[in-house]
Order: sequence, then C-alpha cells, then structure tokens
Amino acid sequence: MTSATIAVIAAAIGLAVAFILGKWVCSSDAGTKRMIEISGYIREGAFAFLKREYKTMVIVIAALFLLIGFALSWTTAVLYLFGAVLSVLAGFFGMNVATRGNVRTAAAAKDSGMNKALKIAFRSGAVMGLCVSGLGLLGLGIIVCVLDLATVTECITGFGFGASSMALFGRVGGGIYTKAADVGADLVGKVEAGIPEDDPRNPAVIADNVGDNVGDVAGMGSDLFESYVGSVVSVVTLAAVASLSAPKFGGHFSQTTAATFPLLIAAIGIIASVIGIFCVRGKEGKNPASALNMGTYLSGVIVIIATIILSNKMLGTYNYAWSIIAGLVVGILIGKVTEIYTSADYKFVKKIAEQSQTGAATTIISGLGVGMMSTLVPILLIAIGVYVAYKFGGMYGIALSAVGMLSTTGMTVAVDAYGPVSDNAGGIAEMSELPAGVRNITDTLDSVGNTTAAIGKGFAIGSAALTALALFASYAAVTKLDAVSLLDPLVIVGLFIGAMLPFLFSAMTMNSVGKAANQMIEEVRRQFREDKGIMKGTSKPDYARCVSISTGAALKEMIMPGVMAIVAPLAVGIILGPAALGGMLGGALSAGVLLAIMMANAGGAWDNAKKYVESGVYGGKGSDTHKAAVVGDTVGDPFKDTSGPSINILIKLMTIIAVVFAPLFVQIGGLLK
Amino acid sequence: MTSATIAVIAAAIGLAVAFILGKWVCSSDAGTKRMIEISGYIREGAFAFLKREYKTMVIVIAALFLLIGFALSWTTAVLYLFGAVLSVLAGFFGMNVATRGNVRTAAAAKDSGMNKALKIAFRSGAVMGLCVSGLGLLGLGIIVCVLDLATVTECITGFGFGASSMALFGRVGGGIYTKAADVGADLVGKVEAGIPEDDPRNPAVIADNVGDNVGDVAGMGSDLFESYVGSVVSVVTLAAVASLSAPKFGGHFSQTTAATFPLLIAAIGIIASVIGIFCVRGKEGKNPASALNMGTYLSGVIVIIATIILSNKMLGTYNYAWSIIAGLVVGILIGKVTEIYTSADYKFVKKIAEQSQTGAATTIISGLGVGMMSTLVPILLIAIGVYVAYKFGGMYGIALSAVGMLSTTGMTVAVDAYGPVSDNAGGIAEMSELPAGVRNITDTLDSVGNTTAAIGKGFAIGSAALTALALFASYAAVTKLDAVSLLDPLVIVGLFIGAMLPFLFSAMTMNSVGKAANQMIEEVRRQFREDKGIMKGTSKPDYARCVSISTGAALKEMIMPGVMAIVAPLAVGIILGPAALGGMLGGALSAGVLLAIMMANAGGAWDNAKKYVESGVYGGKGSDTHKAAVVGDTVGDPFKDTSGPSINILIKLMTIIAVVFAPLFVQIGGLLK
Repeated sequence: MTSATIAVIAAAIGLAVAFILGKWVCSSDAGTKRMIEISGYIREGAFAFLKREYKTMVIVIAALFLLIGFALSWTTAVLYLFGAVLSVLAGFFGMNVATRGNVRTAAAAKDSGMNKALKIAFRSGAVMGLCVSGLGLLGLGIIVCVLDLATVTECITGFGFGASSMALFGRVGGGIYTKAADVGADLVGKVEAGIPEDDPRNPAVIADNVGDNVGDVAGMGSDLFESYVGSVVSVVTLAAVASLSAPKFGGHFSQTTAATFPLLIAAIGIIASVIGIFCVRGKEGKNPASALNMGTYLSGVIVIIATIILSNKMLGTYNYAWSIIAGLVVGILIGKVTEIYTSADYKFVKKIAEQSQTGAATTIISGLGVGMMSTLVPILLIAIGVYVAYKFGGMYGIALSAVGMLSTTGMTVAVDAYGPVSDNAGGIAEMSELPAGVRNITDTLDSVGNTTAAIGKGFAIGSAALTALALFASYAAVTKLDAVSLLDPLVIVGLFIGAMLPFLFSAMTMNSVGKAANQMIEEVRRQFREDKGIMKGTSKPDYARCVSISTGAALKEMIMPGVMAIVAPLAVGIILGPAALGGMLGGALSAGVLLAIMMANAGGAWDNAKKYVESGVYGGKGSDTHKAAVVGDTVGDPFKDTSGPSINILIKLMTIIAVVFAPLFVQIGGLLK
Repeated sequence: MTSATIAVIAAAIGLAVAFILGKWVCSSDAGTKRMIEISGYIREGAFAFLKREYKTMVIVIAALFLLIGFALSWTTAVLYLFGAVLSVLAGFFGMNVATRGNVRTAAAAKDSGMNKALKIAFRSGAVMGLCVSGLGLLGLGIIVCVLDLATVTECITGFGFGASSMALFGRVGGGIYTKAADVGADLVGKVEAGIPEDDPRNPAVIADNVGDNVGDVAGMGSDLFESYVGSVVSVVTLAAVASLSAPKFGGHFSQTTAATFPLLIAAIGIIASVIGIFCVRGKEGKNPASALNMGTYLSGVIVIIATIILSNKMLGTYNYAWSIIAGLVVGILIGKVTEIYTSADYKFVKKIAEQSQTGAATTIISGLGVGMMSTLVPILLIAIGVYVAYKFGGMYGIALSAVGMLSTTGMTVAVDAYGPVSDNAGGIAEMSELPAGVRNITDTLDSVGNTTAAIGKGFAIGSAALTALALFASYAAVTKLDAVSLLDPLVIVGLFIGAMLPFLFSAMTMNSVGKAANQMIEEVRRQFREDKGIMKGTSKPDYARCVSISTGAALKEMIMPGVMAIVAPLAVGIILGPAALGGMLGGALSAGVLLAIMMANAGGAWDNAKKYVESGVYGGKGSDTHKAAVVGDTVGDPFKDTSGPSINILIKLMTIIAVVFAPLFVQIGGLLK
C-alpha cells in the first residue's frame, strides 16, 4: 500500500470520527424552547454570513481560476478550485456542529454539570479540527494517488493557493465581522446603556455571538487549513532537491518517497489527534485546562515516536525525524510562551492591570510594551527550530518541521475551537436567563477557552511562519534562484516593501473594524432610540438587521486588503523580478511575524488584564482602573482577533502566490531590472 | 588644493559662522531678572545631565576603546575616541547656545515682536546645526589629510563608531529623560493638580524644560551627527570598489578621488547651509514656516547645482550626481509626507480628533492606524531612492545618496532645533508670568516648531535608513561576502532575530520611560503633599530634586538597551558568522525603519490631534473628547520622542559595529556554522 493510500485512509478515519462526534453532539439535549430559539438566530446569522461570503468570493475565485488556467496550466487551475472547495467544506462542516454544540453545551451545564458541558464543547471543536486535517489530507492524498509525480510537483501549489485564497477572506472577513459586532455591542450596550454583556435587550448581541463562530471557528479553521496544506505542498515541491541531497544527511531515498513521506506523517498526526481527542475527559471540580493539555501532549508524543521509526525506515536515517520533532516541539513551546504573556496567572498581565491604576495611557503603553517584549522568546524558538531543522535535513528539513508542527492540527484546532463554542454557550445561557450556576460553569469553560485561544493564536503564527518559510524554499527551488542576496539592491527594495506590507495590511484591517463598528453603533443607537420598549424588555430588538449590517460591512471591507495581498506579490514579481520578490517575501515574513506576535499577545494580555481587574483587584468592576483596563481591551480586540491573525494569511498567501506564478516571473525576468 | 583641505576649510567656515551666530544670540537682551533666574535653572539642569551622562559613558567608551585596540588596531581605537569626543563637543556647543537662546527668544517676543524672536530661536538652532556638520566634516577632513589612504580606508569606521556610541546614549538617555519629565509633569500637574502647563508651582516644570534641551537638541544632534559621519565613512570604505566599477557607469576616477569626493559634497553642503540659514528671515504677521522652508529649499538647490558640476568634473560622468540628488530629494519629500500625516491641516489628524469623540480606545486605534498607514509612502520613496541611486552609481551610488541626503544637515538640524528653543521660550514666558501677548508669539513659534520637529524626525529616520544601508554595503565589502542570501537558513535566522530587536528595544525604552516617569510622579506628589505652600504660591518647589531624579533614572535606564544594541551584533557575528549577521542587519533595518516611522508619525499625529481639539473643536479643552485625545498624546510621547528615534540609533549602531568588527567575524567564521 502506498503512502498516499494510507493518507487517504487516515483522512477518511478522521472524517468518520468527526461525523460520529458531530452526531453525538447533535444527539444531546438542546435545552429549553428559549435556548433553541436563540441558538437558531445565531446559527441562521452564521450561515447567512458564510453564504454571502462565499458568493462574494466566487468572483475572485473564478478570476484567479481563469488567470491560472491561461497563464500557467489548467491542471493547476483545477487543483486551485479543489483546494478552495475543500476549505469551504471544512469551514461549513465545522461551523455546522459548532453552532449546534453551543446551545447543547449550555443545556448540559444546566442539567448535567461541568463535565458533560466540557465534553460537548470540546467535541464540537474537535469536529472542526478533524474536518480541517481530514479534508486537507484527503485532498492531498487523492491528488498524489491520481496524478503522476511530475504533474503533482508542478501543479500541487494550485491546491495550496486555493486553500490560501479562501483563508484570506475567511480570516479577514470573519475577523472584521466578529470585532465590528463585538465593539458595537459593547460600546452601546455595556458603556452607553449600562446593560450586561449578552443581554438579550442588546440588538447586536446575536451578531456578537455569530461573530465568534464566523471569526474564531470558521476563520481560524481556514487559517490552519491553509498552513496544514501549505506545509505538505512545500515538502512535495522540495522532494526533488531533497532526494538529491539525501546522502549529505546520511539518508537515501527516491523523489517519490520524499514527496509522500509527509503524507504519512500527517496520517499519523490525524490518528494521534483522534486518540488525543478521546482522551480529553474533564473531572467534576477539576480545571478543564489540564485535560485539554493532556490531549495535546499525548498526540505530540505519539507523533514523535512514530516519526522516529518512520524516518529511519523510509528515509534511511533518523536525521529527518529531528527536523520534524523540532517543528512540533517549537509549536507547543510557542503556545506555552504565549500563555505566560497573556494569562493573568503570570506577572505581565498583572503589571498591565497595575498600570491601569494611573489611567488608560499607561494601560496602553504597558500593554504595547508587553506585546513587543513577548516577541523575544517565540522568535528565538523559531530561529532555533529553523536552525535544527536545517542542520538535520536541509531545506527539506525546514519544510518537514512545518509538517511536524502541523501534524497534530486536528487536536490543536479542537482545543482552539472549544473556546468560541463555550463562549457562545455562555451567551446563550445569559440570553435565556438561565440560573447563575449555569453561567458559572460556562464562565469557567470560557475562561479556559480564552487561554486556549491565545495559545492557538501563538500556534497559528508559528505555523504560518514555518509554512511561509517552507514555501519560500519551494519558491527558490521553482525559480532556480541561486541566491536572494541582500547585497542586491533590488532585493533590498523588495525587503523594504515587504516589511511595509504587514503594517499597511494591519492599518487597513483596523480601519475596517472601526468603520464597520461605527455602522453597528449607529444601528444599535437607532433601535434604542426609536423603540423605547427594547430597554424595558417589552419589545424584541431587530437582531437580524444587526447581523445583516455586520455581514455587509465585513464583506465590503475585506475586499481592499484582500486585493492588496494578491496584487502586491504579482506586481513586484512582474516589475522588479524574482529576486526582488524573494526579498519582499523575506521582509513580509520577518516583519509580519513580529507584528502578528506583538498584536496577538498585547491583545490577549489586555483582555485578561481587564478580566483580572473585574475579579476584584484595584477596585474591581466600575472603578477608574477598570475603565482604563476596558480601553486596553477595546484596543486589543482588533489587534488579537482581526489584524494580528490576518497577517498570518498575508505572509502565507503572498508566498504561495509567488510559488504558483514563479514560472511567469522567471519568464518576464523583471520589467525594471 | 586637495578635497580634504577644502573640506577642512569649509568646516572651519561653518564653525566660525556658528561662533558668530552664537555670539550674536548671547548679545541679545536676556529679559527680566525672573526670566534669567528660570533659564539659569534650565541651563544648570541640562549641563548637570550632560556631565553625568558623559561620566557614565566614560566607562563604556574606555571599554570599547580597549576592545577595539586589542582586537583590531590602535589607530581605529584612536579614531573611535576622536569621533566620540567630536560628538560630545557638538552636543556641548549646541546646547550651550540653545540654553541661552531660549530666554532671549522670550525676551525678544516681549520687547521686539515675532520677527526678532524667530530670528533668535532659529539662529540658536543654527548653531547646533553648524556644529554638527562642521565638527563632523572637520574630523573627517583631518583624518583624510593626516593619514594615508590605506589606513583611512581601514580605520575610519572607528570614527563612525565613536559618533555612534555617543549617539546611542545621547538619543536613548535624552529620550528617556525628556519623556519621564514630561509625563511626570503632565500627569500630576495638569491632570491631578489642575494647574496649566509650565506653571512655576509644578516641581517638575524645570526638568520638563531641561528635557527639551537634552532630548530634542543634544540627543537629536548626536543622532544626525552619527548619520552625517556614517554616510561619509561608508563612501570612503566603498571607494576601492567604486573606482573599479566606475567605467560601468561611464565614469573614470581613482580610489582617492572616490574617497574624497563626498568630502567635497559635504563641504558644499555646509556653505549651502550657511547661505540658507542667513536667508531665513521672518516677516511680521507672516507664518514663520514659509521662511524656514525657503531656507531648506535654497540650500538643497545650491547642493544640486554644485553636485551636477562636480560629478562631471571629478568623476567624469553626470551619473553619480543623480545618485546624490536622489538622496537629497527623497530626504525632503519624506519630511513633507511626515507633515501630511502629522499636521492638523490634513485629514489624518482631523480623523483622530473626530474618533476621540467615542473615547480613548478609538483615539488609540485610529492613531495606530494612521501611524501604520503612514509607512507606505516613505518606504516607497526610500525604495525609489535606493533604486535610482544604484542604477546610476552601484553600491557607491547608494552611499552617495546618503551623503546627498545629509549634505544640508546644517540647515536641517537648524530648523529642527529651532523647535525646542521656541518651546523653552514659551515655558520661560509662562513661568515668568509675562503678558499673554508674549505667550501668543512663542506659541506661534512653538506650533511651527512642532511641525518642523515632526519633519525632522522623518528626515532622521530616512537618513538613518540610507546611512545604515550604505554601511551595510561597506560591511559586505569589508567581509568580502559574495552574497547574504535569504536562501541560507542562517541568514533567515539572522533576519528573524534582527527584525525582533527593534521591537525588543522599543519595549525596553518604553518601559524605561514608564519607570522613570513613575519616580517623577511620586516625587511631585510628595512635594505637593509635604509643602502645602507650593500650590498656594508661597513657597518654591524643589526643582533641583526633580531634575536629579530624571537624570538618575534616565542614566540608569539607558544602560540595558544600550548594552543590548552593542552585544547583539557581536554575539550573532561571533556565534552565527558574518552571513547571519548580514541577515540580522537586514532584518533590523527593514523592521526598524517601519517601526520607527510608525511610532514617530502616530506620536506626532496624536500630539496635534490633541492640540486640534484644544483649538475648540469637538468641545475643546476639558471635554470628554479632549480627555480621550490626551490619552493618545500621552501614549504618543514615548513613541515619538523616545522609542521611535532610538531605533534610528539602533540600526546605525549595529551596522557600524558589524563593519568595525568585520575582520574578527570573518576570522572566527561563526562558532555554530
């Protein structure tokens, strides 16, 4: 049996388990009539957004399909479509279960307690995780099974590009949506009207909960789907180089083995994730975080053991195993470091809370300081990972390390997506006016979810960095560039432009959130003004209109940054040539990773500093310190949930565009060169 | 007569004019007894800081002197000392006149009106400008006159390093000092005690005014002294390469001509600056900005014309002139762009003010958005400048473009230093309780000064970028690296680490401001608490103690970032080797320039947004909108006056360290390689 066949089987197992878990979640009790009604609104809103998002993207996808077909090859174009469709399916299935799991988590919290609630929330997230890795590996496996190796090597980048372009709109559109709704709901509801979070009288409350699903479930899933697929794609394109240089690392293998090896690692990763997922069992009265961590570590250990055996057996040396393990370990460590900088259990968040006593300005300064400072360790970890991976496996080793990091994606996404499901469960409990005890359980789940979400963000950035780097190596291989030298002024020009793009992109996405949030604020104010019955609780606010405004604004605002991300590498590649484009990718990668880490961690730290103050220190809720901390949290919202994560997509997407269109750039050779 | 002799003569003329202008400023009337008393405090505090700063630095300088002497050559070590001493002298002379010009500007505003006040303030700044360029060129000219070409080429980098290490402490220490005092004075004085800015009852008010001198005059001067010297140094080290590749650009010249050509450009630049300075004449009732702009443009035009003639005559082609002009024009344009993003006359600042209506969070988000967005055009300008400079003169052309940009440093620094002198004049007028009419004049001068300061910051970043790039080319020439290729994973590792350093450095300097400001806040509160007579105006606050606290805190806090900036390139060069260090410099350069532009422009925009609100829009002073705008301004303070400008030094210093110690790195070849 070939590696590709094994990959398809493992993917099928993963998807089957996802199906079973989904069925299990849906078979749980959905609670009271009121709960079902509210979760219905959320579900409806989430799917309405997805539908309109996909509709908007059809034009872009069609245009790129034709461009690829005419400029490169129709096989690549078809694989592009295939990648895009699988990304859509992963998002669709995952969100389908997440929007059913939320209300059932709340119901379980009501009737059966913490343990059952955790199980439902986590398994809902696990469906997303297994769909992402299962569909990703299924697609890759089928491509390798069906096409001959030469065609695969040439065209598989199209598959990655398909995943990337959907991720762009999923992450950016979803990110804008969720924060526009969140900021809008908070500013008018909590600050102006003085009603609590998730109060059913707030017209934007449904949109806010929809945002968790489209941004933090579907958007995040499409981000990691892209990384997952991209890392394997880069290994396949580097396989030819790897088989030639294998003796250097003490190995001996054919190009085919080199190309299919990562499929096997990914296959093991899925099985390891399934095992990890089933091992997550909460205990009544115990912190759910340890159960989640256990699952993650277990999956990691399984992959590590299997990798060591396989590397020796298939490639004739243990060396490549170290490359893969380097990636896996770095991924887990980056997550841990993220926790240290963003959790209220450590000094950084406490420091921000303390600084909030002297007002909003010091909250902001200290939060930015923490965000900037927090780049040190992750960057050193990435540097060490790259160094080790290269030492033991060359450029192929770097690509393998990305595969290693992403092998347990099923588990990682499960833990990550568990957060927004619990968050939604809390929202539904509040809106359905369930007893305080229920809300206490969902709050516990949610607070763990906040930490896992921060860890997930760190992981997403780290994996984006390694994937982009692996794709960068593929780019060099495809363009046959000997060097992308910083002594070449065109490369320097590219480097500067590349470093500028994440800043520009972040500015655009932050402004987009601002604009979309303003529309939401106006709408909520209008509803409160025109219908006095809403605040009294006698008439129902128009939730659908808020959902529709968020949807429209997000879709409109995602166009400009999206177009920029696609046009920039094409323009630089055509005008300044392949080397300058290499410089641009390097600049965007380095500056982008830094900015993304800073924004994600500053945002996470502000969020938890606010929660820390709310827990009663420095005067607690309503104090001046709290007001200052809220300013930090509001600034942090687009940082951590829109702009920061969007940069992941930017750097991966631009690199894969470079790889896909490399033949074109080489042919033109740079108009200005 | 050789070019070096001409350079020494031009430098002497510049210094003579500085002396005459200084005499002229000092001969003006210094005003009332109260004014003289207050300016005496400021002067005393400023020199006390300089003295203690220099004392702290003696240890570092001595250590580096010995390290260079033993590891490289004693000639380099002596030139290192020479560069450091000249930088000290430039700061000393410049600040000497600035701290006399401030009170005389106020006196002129009182007795003779706007025109005379502008003249005194500007000529005080001009002394700093001419000292920076005069002493820089004098040193370079003497070195080239005294030593033979081979020794010059080998050792002149020591001179640049001397300038750099003083700049490090000048800019970082001065930056921390000025903002600690400013934030401390504002938070307790304006916010808590409710007394106006520059109120003599505020114990920190003298320290605040001292800060303008040590940070914005001496610190900024040392920054541009470093750029000025560094750009010429890089041309000299590239001269051998240039004379070989000259025919490629249609020229024909010896290495000696290539090495001394920039001295001539700099000589013309000084004369052009002197002419420009004398042409700045205010007209009663007219905006002083246009007079200042006229001087800048005039100097630029003189240099452009002379450059065209000289390039053809000395190098045998007009091509190199285009490289120089590219730098000069890009420098002026970056200044203009900075104005657009940071002046209340344009939409960006107005937008921030508008967003302040919805609170501090939206103020911060929109300000960061403006800062990030504002990187686009300057980066494109730098990219175009690099491209044009290289097209017409190769790597030598890039170094020449830096010289071109900095040729009119005398004029640029004059315009820039005029700002803090006017600001001080306003402070003295307020503290001496002069009539409101006087304060109106100084306010007009000050508000123009804010814009010129923002422009100066843009120019300082642009020149730092080009200088670092030129030095980077020298680094490649000295290490004889063929390529610093992004396909080499060690270069990628270096690139990541390099990109991280500006973030880390900014975090450190921002935290330093926070810590130092906290000490100041405690002290001011203590004085108000323990002596009730201060607020009543019956007893005099202890100004000296606040000055001493700022000084101590700044000197203590500048050590860590300073050490990091020196150790990082040494560590990477020794451990990972010359290529990885090249990658690190590239990463620090690209990410650093971006971060510096963002921070400087966001800070400038917040500052002017607050002033715009104070002018009466959106409720004016005291409104909620104003409070939100003040938060932006406070966050912007360390951005624009400490962290942002410090990054300039970081990227130049690390590059020149790489050049100086290149032979060592090549010899070791990277321990981990």
